[in-house]
Amino acid sequence: MGPRRTDPAALVDGVRSGDRGALARALSVIERGGPDAREVGRLAFPLGGSCYTLGITGAPGAGKSTLTSALLGVLRAAALEVAVLAIDPSSPFTGGAILGDRVRMQDHALDPGVFIRSMATRGHLGGLALATPQAVRVLDAAGVDWVVLETVGVGQVEVEVAGAADTTLVVVNPGWGDAVQANKAGLLEVADLFVINKADRPGAADTRRDLDTMLDLSAPPVGGWRPPILETVAGTGQGVDAVWETVVAHRAHLEAGGALVERRARRLTDELRAILARRLEERALDVASGSSFDDLHREVLARRLDPYTAADRLLCEATS
Amino acid sequence: MGPRRTDPAALVDGVRSGDRGALARALSVIERGGPDAREVGRLAFPLGGSCYTLGITGAPGAGKSTLTSALLGVLRAAALEVAVLAIDPSSPFTGGAILGDRVRMQDHALDPGVFIRSMATRGHLGGLALATPQAVRVLDAAGVDWVVLETVGVGQVEVEVAGAADTTLVVVNPGWGDAVQANKAGLLEVADLFVINKADRPGAADTRRDLDTMLDLSAPPVGGWRPPILETVAGTGQGVDAVWETVVAHRAHLEAGGALVERRARRLTDELRAILARRLEERALDVASGSSFDDLHREVLARRLDPYTAADRLLCEATS
Repeated sequence: MGPRRTDPAALVDGVRSGDRGALARALSVIERGGPDAREVGRLAFPLGGSCYTLGITGAPGAGKSTLTSALLGVLRAAALEVAVLAIDPSSPFTGGAILGDRVRMQDHALDPGVFIRSMATRGHLGGLALATPQAVRVLDAAGVDWVVLETVGVGQVEVEVAGAADTTLVVVNPGWGDAVQANKAGLLEVADLFVINKADRPGAADTRRDLDTMLDLSAPPVGGWRPPILETVAGTGQGVDAVWETVVAHRAHLEAGGALVERRARRLTDELRAILARRLEERALDVASGSSFDDLHREVLARRLDPYTAADRLLCEATS
Repeated sequence: MGPRRTDPAALVDGVRSGDRGALARALSVIERGGPDAREVGRLAFPLGGSCYTLGITGAPGAGKSTLTSALLGVLRAAALEVAVLAIDPSSPFTGGAILGDRVRMQDHALDPGVFIRSMATRGHLGGLALATPQAVRVLDAAGVDWVVLETVGVGQVEVEVAGAADTTLVVVNPGWGDAVQANKAGLLEVADLFVINKADRPGAADTRRDLDTMLDLSAPPVGGWRPPILETVAGTGQGVDAVWETVVAHRAHLEAGGALVERRARRLTDELRAILARRLEERALDVASGSSFDDLHREVLARRLDPYTAADRLLCEATS
């Protein structure tokens, strides 16, 4: 027997009715990509529209997962349904094994109002940037109120994924030039708030001053929001309530000024462009591996045809 | 009056008949890109086929231009017509000003058998990778026997351009871990021969040993050619004859085994793919800035259409 056939319609029905197994399977389909993924995304799309995404990013070891776990407690206390999409390969949420001791996941592992899922990059980072919004749509269709996107802020794509949330939180640590590293990685540009985690360690004041200076040097805040800098000790819960209040305040700020609609429209423009580029890339690969390619290649080698005319003929064929 | 209109056919006729002014103008057209460039390339293409390209690459300051200048003397002594395409922004050949004192260009500046030309990157490196083979074709149509491509081996595109020659020579200097840098930059993979220039300085033996070790550690030589390591003091001409003999030997090696034909066919495959990708990219940009894009974007925002279906509709339009 081959693998179980996917029925996208049945899967999305299951997702909508709150079947956690269906939700997990639907996300696996999205992760794999291909026609079934598109169909699941297409069916899920009109069902959503009410969930809010919070991106949590920062260097490996900054305490993103611990902070995420602490925030889950606050969200659940407010009776909000929440999903975590962990895209950080160093996250204890990913890879199946949950390091409960470290992130106190015991608090949430059996809670039906919390859904935790890792997204594998499978070495194809471009794919991740496209898969993440589709995964969020499936969670949205499942009625989740908040989606936390946990990504490691090291590469361009990861920073893009983190910045593609409604509110983006950047976690740094005291000392060791973390603020400068965050700047270099492009995290300053996507941050709506900064959290200096492990703030009980020496150097928190220096890190705050560095971040402040860099914010002073960068472009003036868009829409009047200057990213606040908060301090936490996520492991003990210290400062986590204030982080949550700031996230909620940022959401209210975006919603009041119409900036949320704008931000989502801009994100959609980026996504549409990325889908177009990907489609055309696939088409170019198809063209370049076909038999017409070999024929025209031979013509060019024999100097009967120049490379640009050959490329045009291939394109005509591919798009007719 | 606007700029002079380009007549590609007249220009290529001029190139073929040995008009240096026409050659310079044709290369400017190639550099600018667009329909005229394509037409010049198309007309020049069947006229060529006999010139041989030598890539000279290495870090800035390694002495590529001095070596090039010294090799020009050898080539001219053999009555060969030669063109230099300098793509190195740090080259004294580029930017119009020739630092004669440094590179002894006085020897060649008035020689009608030598044609020197800089290619500007204009901030668009992808364009450079596509423009260089077209420029070589125009020089080929002009009856040039050898084209020397001088590029600085620092970025991926520059290394690709250097590696797109028939024979690629990598210049390093004694000491300061230059061999390791060359390896990191990917130059080891494209090198057909190494030249340790400024070999009268301390450390030449160490650099030779480093290169030897790295060659031992890399894949076995393709077609039985292990890149020889030569030493020069290009400023005094020391060792330059041996470099030339090795280049000629490599050419003979490639021609004898059929490897030159293979190498050129593979390069053409890469070029065709790059042209296809560029064309599709242009098309995607057209699509993404059209009014249909805005219309469909609005439909997706209103959740009446999912992004993938919207992208498909745009593609249909773009390619119909």
